[in-house]
Amino acid sequence: MKGAWREECAVFGVWGPEDSAQLAYLGLHALQHRGQESTGIVALDAGQFRIEKGLGLVSEFFTPERLAKLPGRAAIGHNRYSTTGSLTRENSQPLTGVFSGGPLAVAHNGNLVNTVELRRELEQCGALFQTTLDSELFLHLIALSKATTIEERVADAMRRVRGAYSLVLLTSTAVIGVREPHGVRPLVLGRHESGAWRVAFDGCAFDLIGATLEREVEPGEIVILDHRGLSSRRGLPAEARAQCIFEHVYFSRPDSVVFGATVDRVRKAIGHRLAEEQPVDADIVISVPDSSNAIALGFAEASHLPYEHGLIRNHYVGRTFIHPTQAIRDEGVRLKYNAVQAILAGKRVAVIDDSIVRGTTSRKLVRLLRGAGARAIHFRVGSPPITHPCFYGIDTPCRGDLIAATHDVEGIRRFLEVDSLGYLSLEGLLACEREGAAFCHACFSGTYPIALGESRDKLALEGPRRWVRAALAGQGG
Amino acid sequence: MKGAWREECAVFGVWGPEDSAQLAYLGLHALQHRGQESTGIVALDAGQFRIEKGLGLVSEFFTPERLAKLPGRAAIGHNRYSTTGSLTRENSQPLTGVFSGGPLAVAHNGNLVNTVELRRELEQCGALFQTTLDSELFLHLIALSKATTIEERVADAMRRVRGAYSLVLLTSTAVIGVREPHGVRPLVLGRHESGAWRVAFDGCAFDLIGATLEREVEPGEIVILDHRGLSSRRGLPAEARAQCIFEHVYFSRPDSVVFGATVDRVRKAIGHRLAEEQPVDADIVISVPDSSNAIALGFAEASHLPYEHGLIRNHYVGRTFIHPTQAIRDEGVRLKYNAVQAILAGKRVAVIDDSIVRGTTSRKLVRLLRGAGARAIHFRVGSPPITHPCFYGIDTPCRGDLIAATHDVEGIRRFLEVDSLGYLSLEGLLACEREGAAFCHACFSGTYPIALGESRDKLALEGPRRWVRAALAGQGG
Amino acid sequence: MKGAWREECAVFGVWGPEDSAQLAYLGLHALQHRGQESTGIVALDAGQFRIEKGLGLVSEFFTPERLAKLPGRAAIGHNRYSTTGSLTRENSQPLTGVFSGGPLAVAHNGNLVNTVELRRELEQCGALFQTTLDSELFLHLIALSKATTIEERVADAMRRVRGAYSLVLLTSTAVIGVREPHGVRPLVLGRHESGAWRVAFDGCAFDLIGATLEREVEPGEIVILDHRGLSSRRGLPAEARAQCIFEHVYFSRPDSVVFGATVDRVRKAIGHRLAEEQPVDADIVISVPDSSNAIALGFAEASHLPYEHGLIRNHYVGRTFIHPTQAIRDEGVRLKYNAVQAILAGKRVAVIDDSIVRGTTSRKLVRLLRGAGARAIHFRVGSPPITHPCFYGIDTPCRGDLIAATHDVEGIRRFLEVDSLGYLSLEGLLACEREGAAFCHACFSGTYPIALGESRDKLALEGPRRWVRAALAGQGG
Amino acid sequence: MKGAWREECAVFGVWGPEDSAQLAYLGLHALQHRGQESTGIVALDAGQFRIEKGLGLVSEFFTPERLAKLPGRAAIGHNRYSTTGSLTRENSQPLTGVFSGGPLAVAHNGNLVNTVELRRELEQCGALFQTTLDSELFLHLIALSKATTIEERVADAMRRVRGAYSLVLLTSTAVIGVREPHGVRPLVLGRHESGAWRVAFDGCAFDLIGATLEREVEPGEIVILDHRGLSSRRGLPAEARAQCIFEHVYFSRPDSVVFGATVDRVRKAIGHRLAEEQPVDADIVISVPDSSNAIALGFAEASHLPYEHGLIRNHYVGRTFIHPTQAIRDEGVRLKYNAVQAILAGKRVAVIDDSIVRGTTSRKLVRLLRGAGARAIHFRVGSPPITHPCFYGIDTPCRGDLIAATHDVEGIRRFLEVDSLGYLSLEGLLACEREGAAFCHACFSGTYPIALGESRDKLALEGPRRWVRAALAGQGG
Repeated sequence: MKGAWREECAVFGVWGPEDSAQLAYLGLHALQHRGQESTGIVALDAGQFRIEKGLGLVSEFFTPERLAKLPGRAAIGHNRYSTTGSLTRENSQPLTGVFSGGPLAVAHNGNLVNTVELRRELEQCGALFQTTLDSELFLHLIALSKATTIEERVADAMRRVRGAYSLVLLTSTAVIGVREPHGVRPLVLGRHESGAWRVAFDGCAFDLIGATLEREVEPGEIVILDHRGLSSRRGLPAEARAQCIFEHVYFSRPDSVVFGATVDRVRKAIGHRLAEEQPVDADIVISVPDSSNAIALGFAEASHLPYEHGLIRNHYVGRTFIHPTQAIRDEGVRLKYNAVQAILAGKRVAVIDDSIVRGTTSRKLVRLLRGAGARAIHFRVGSPPITHPCFYGIDTPCRGDLIAATHDVEGIRRFLEVDSLGYLSLEGLLACEREGAAFCHACFSGTYPIALGESRDKLALEGPRRWVRAALAGQGG
Repeated sequence: MKGAWREECAVFGVWGPEDSAQLAYLGLHALQHRGQESTGIVALDAGQFRIEKGLGLVSEFFTPERLAKLPGRAAIGHNRYSTTGSLTRENSQPLTGVFSGGPLAVAHNGNLVNTVELRRELEQCGALFQTTLDSELFLHLIALSKATTIEERVADAMRRVRGAYSLVLLTSTAVIGVREPHGVRPLVLGRHESGAWRVAFDGCAFDLIGATLEREVEPGEIVILDHRGLSSRRGLPAEARAQCIFEHVYFSRPDSVVFGATVDRVRKAIGHRLAEEQPVDADIVISVPDSSNAIALGFAEASHLPYEHGLIRNHYVGRTFIHPTQAIRDEGVRLKYNAVQAILAGKRVAVIDDSIVRGTTSRKLVRLLRGAGARAIHFRVGSPPITHPCFYGIDTPCRGDLIAATHDVEGIRRFLEVDSLGYLSLEGLLACEREGAAFCHACFSGTYPIALGESRDKLALEGPRRWVRAALAGQGG
Repeated sequence: MKGAWREECAVFGVWGPEDSAQLAYLGLHALQHRGQESTGIVALDAGQFRIEKGLGLVSEFFTPERLAKLPGRAAIGHNRYSTTGSLTRENSQPLTGVFSGGPLAVAHNGNLVNTVELRRELEQCGALFQTTLDSELFLHLIALSKATTIEERVADAMRRVRGAYSLVLLTSTAVIGVREPHGVRPLVLGRHESGAWRVAFDGCAFDLIGATLEREVEPGEIVILDHRGLSSRRGLPAEARAQCIFEHVYFSRPDSVVFGATVDRVRKAIGHRLAEEQPVDADIVISVPDSSNAIALGFAEASHLPYEHGLIRNHYVGRTFIHPTQAIRDEGVRLKYNAVQAILAGKRVAVIDDSIVRGTTSRKLVRLLRGAGARAIHFRVGSPPITHPCFYGIDTPCRGDLIAATHDVEGIRRFLEVDSLGYLSLEGLLACEREGAAFCHACFSGTYPIALGESRDKLALEGPRRWVRAALAGQGG
Repeated sequence: MKGAWREECAVFGVWGPEDSAQLAYLGLHALQHRGQESTGIVALDAGQFRIEKGLGLVSEFFTPERLAKLPGRAAIGHNRYSTTGSLTRENSQPLTGVFSGGPLAVAHNGNLVNTVELRRELEQCGALFQTTLDSELFLHLIALSKATTIEERVADAMRRVRGAYSLVLLTSTAVIGVREPHGVRPLVLGRHESGAWRVAFDGCAFDLIGATLEREVEPGEIVILDHRGLSSRRGLPAEARAQCIFEHVYFSRPDSVVFGATVDRVRKAIGHRLAEEQPVDADIVISVPDSSNAIALGFAEASHLPYEHGLIRNHYVGRTFIHPTQAIRDEGVRLKYNAVQAILAGKRVAVIDDSIVRGTTSRKLVRLLRGAGARAIHFRVGSPPITHPCFYGIDTPCRGDLIAATHDVEGIRRFLEVDSLGYLSLEGLLACEREGAAFCHACFSGTYPIALGESRDKLALEGPRRWVRAALAGQGG
């Protein structure tokens, strides 16, 4: 599965070392797969904020000149995925403002479900909005809180919002990390061996910057990194854990430790289980690279079949690639993958993918494999059919576009034009985790752990982004 | 006088015609001499704001691609001069936000004198600031007003601020023009011959866009341009007029009609009066181009002396010019003006300038003229000695840098190294205006028409910009 | 006259001082009016050439970063005007190459008349061309010469080309200046007061860089600036002088000394003579700014009429200006000039211009003046009717577009819609020069001092650029 | 092996289809791994050349705007790797010029060994050089040839040069492909299924553009693609084949068919042979991704050991990555690879790499694996020790920097700090090819199939690039 199911953001914060913005840059680099359309860093230099943010990949936007404008011993950063319409520099994070307590910056990963109601209420109080982002609500809630400390103000804000979020905040005296009470999205703490400083962030990337993973930020916890070191307080009581299982299936890098498990190991277990549940009589096993590699390797191992690199991914065909005109495309251009004829010709092939969203990319792959001479194609998927949209921070198509919401397995098999098709069961998937009950699986089951409230039906129909945008559209911006 | 005395801004608004942003661009172009460091346009397109703003001259920043992103039938624009420190895209105008009444943009020319007190008060109410600009106060005051119409909200805001300002606002239904009750800064209405639409703006530029000057916006008046045409209401009662006389002496283009008079005609009258008050026995009259040309022509006429182009200005040596290294400069490089030896050699020269701020540029010019062979140099100035800073929207050096605040005329003459020096009297200057009493002359007289309040002493010492910036510095941003 | 009659180039060279490229930059800046579409500098640094060239104004293209890449104690530079078709970085000058004698760069002002024949011949010898410029012929002729010294090679090249040219060359050991035997285009030598170094260049600009004009490079002379100072040798015998009179009428800055005369003084004399030949009964005299200012001042003086600034030029409406759409233009937009109603209304106006090429701009101006209320308009022109194209380095429209080639004076008067029209006679114009016989006046008289040869008829029909381009088109590039 | 051993270029040509430049762009994209520092395309549009070339990756340099400037039905393109010193737009290919036969462009992959002698000779004949590239020699040799057809001129040029080269040329009537007589570098022909057009190029990339591989261009052959289709003639008689074996070991993409074999299959055979020659007692096999993946998979298969993804490559750490300051680097930053602790901890690991050049990167990897807990590390290399530099188009370090030129296997083992080290034998490597005798293995054996001549000793000492650059330095450029 590629491209149709995107995590919206990544956040990162660091307190203490000289040139903290450089570490933020490296951290965002390691998290680049989680947000490729805008990026930004706010650094704290002698009590002043320095801000550089804009459209583009981390690796495109940040030039040495820009990084050099971000001195100081604390920094937070953000990568963002966004749909085209609202893709502007203004909507890039971190968001900043000055309130009575001084300057404040926020970087946010996740999605709120009471955005529209909250925003209307705040506007009635005289709040002036700069963006259409959920994240700005946190800034206003903190500024309007009557509490006197920043931690109390943050806790006040947590009481008002509902949804999934992991936040990193910067003030003139601290970096603050916040994880919402269900723990849907990850947020972890790292420590550098020098002992002196700690880093809060989301996902992998500690290795890249020479730190080691210390622990997760607990659901509902507020952690404060400042000149005294690390301190912690509870913002809200923890709720039942509802960790996003798609982090293990697809989003995270294989070398990450997420929700306490190494992703590569979970995926290999998925491959073993998939081979057990959906065995195949084939000559070779191939992966849809790169996210399905570990699942495919596990599948091959458990099936005692040879694993081959039958599909090659064109790494350079990325965001900046200029897509050819239709005339050229009609010539049979194949952009993203190339099938290796010498491996595939005459073979019965087990193709392993992590998931299927719309099915259109998978069908193209299948035709590519047939063109290279595959004699039979057996498609195996390392997760259950996706039948429901996500409202907690993943950008998903509206329900009608999820092929498994409208087709049964046989229907999907015919659509994909494969000889056989097998999905991993939900039970099987959860069994690959140490504690299956701690995971959110709403996209497979429709069981949403955080109440969606009255807007649920509309949300389900249109997808959360489109609906919020429409609701706020009259207000411009 | 060149460069040391700068108007901070220009504003422009248009309602009605297709591609209004193009007219805003042309208008800003005509006003480019009033703000060369940042620029911006907000256009209203189908109820949505489109914003393009950034650093640079109008002619540099706006490319065809950028203008093409600003469709719609209403637009406001802004040019800004700013000191280096706070020169950022964030501090570029127009400023925008969304409040309970919808989207709002403001472009502001002028300077407030109760900024610090107001801002502290608003932050206590939970307001979140994005910039250190006066102009943002208007956005918050309008958002926080309990009134129900936008005009009432604007009038509420006018009651809270003190200082000089001409505003142009954009909402999703109107362009609104506001002029403060003393009328320090200009703001005028233009009408296009098609009859259908009107334009509100500041300064000249109607000719450029094919409109004709209709009338001034009255001091204290709020004008609304919307689909019904022009309407008007009073925001505050008018106070005694205090029009900035420097608009006539230096800032405005000679072809502008400002405060009801054509600038070229006022300047020619100044030249006549100057010849009367400070006659000269010379062979030729030359101008310090270009702002003093009309004064010099009037002086030559009244003195019955020939007018010559003895100084040539290097037009291309502008903002983008790369200044040579000291080593090269020591070679005797002369960048801004060139003296014409064939005109000056052996002559007794009357040099006419509009004003003297620091005196350093004037002394360089005098040396240039001597180098070209001038036998005697008689310097005549079309305004009185400048002894006090401006707090109403002109960026002036602090008082210690004004040569006339620390030297008498003979001292200045010696500093300039000229054979004689003569200033126009304040009485004489005011006599060149139809109604001299309607003008602010605080920079010549120290009589400030709008009370400066308790902060006066600090302001007078440090200059207004520096003081406000220091006061807000603890708050970052 | 504005815009329709353009000098193609400016050249500049300097030997000796540290950071010579900075002086070249300043010199090109002063010559910016002579070539605004591409620019370049080649610096000699420790025996290696450093090259920066590209499209745009000197002031746009050269950034501090680019200048910093041009260290060294010698440099040559070039500004170029070019028509759109061939406006590429490749066609920017200086042109460079490496031949058996080492690296060589050439900057060329002028136009050859035997380009096509010469190029064909060189190609037959195996020469490989990079551009369609005349200037490249010099590089190849020097490389192919059998002579052993660079001066002899240059003299060999001079024997082969026919036309108007002023060259500045750079080798690894010298800056070399070359002026063709008729002296059509200027080329002068300047000396810095430090005595140590000299500069060769074309036009004005010595003042700007702190040098003084030493003398003209003689027609047919080769001057060599190197570590020994200045030396000179004859390349070809001098022919009868044929200096371009348009340098005095229009191209040069008023403060320049060109062909031994200060331009402002020649223009003032033209004004006097014009008043004598074509007297006017008017209330005021106005100039078409800025090139006609001195002529108009002279005309006013001799006519005893007041000189007024009735037309204001919009200085910012330059090359980078975005022209409005037709819809907006139809609103009556007036871009380049603004007429001052308070000066013009009800007046009989004498309008002074230096020349008329197509007549279309003049007609627009006349309508602008009428719109501002001028009661009568008497147009006076400081040169004779232009009836023939130039083949010596000025980019002129083809003959059919020259209004005086197809209309008599009465016809032109009707076209311009003026009350009277008067041109200065050729005799009168030449009388304003110390030695009228030393000037080329082919554009007024059709008498071409350098033989055009067999291609004359085609050239006369199509204009030289178009014809050469067509002749070379089959060869691409 | 990563980074230290780089192929210098890739070439591509297409004749026939509309928007040929788009196909050239796609082709260069697929070949991006072969040249990442400059790129260019020349398109033939109505008899005229359109050229876009410059510094940067294909995917960075070519924007939709730039591609849109390249219409036409024929195009050639080039990617280039280059060392820093001479990395300029001027040295980007394709190179172009106009000779007596019209416009000509050349794109060249390879390296000549008689550059210096040839260039001196051509300069004596009056040739004017624009670059320091070998490739320019072909342009001059073709222009100076006395032959009358372009094919004859090309054959003349082939007779004069010595070295390895694959050329693609564009004229106003054809795309021409040329492969040197030993066939060191690949050059192949593809045909589109529409039948109508053919493509000549180097490496893979036919799949991407919907064409199929037709055949290799023969060593010594000249192929002409024009409106009549494909024609061919012999330029020089074929010599003994000397195909670069490194194409199979490292440079080519696994899905390419190069010298008649699918690269993935050759590499898997290498893995099998390596397991046979250098068996290992280990728990897991891991690859140094991505170029060694197929070798490692073959090794694991033959060894009956599990294959794991123990090293993850950070794909985004590419050419545009900003490297951290030393202070930050000292914190333990790990940029290029990440080791997966959950896979490696406590394991005996067989690490498979394709080759070792300097050994420094390998040692870093080894330390990374130890840090992740690997108990034992057995390094296996899929090719023999590299002891000699390449003079035929690969940019290699000078001999002293090749670790195997100065250390024996035990010395290298100690340097790498591994428990055991094993290289594949040359005999073993050649046995993995269908016809081992047809390959050049000079870098392993020192047996150079194309005579290096008198300059050999110098070349061997300094590496070919540095020597040629020094020899030409006196001539600037």
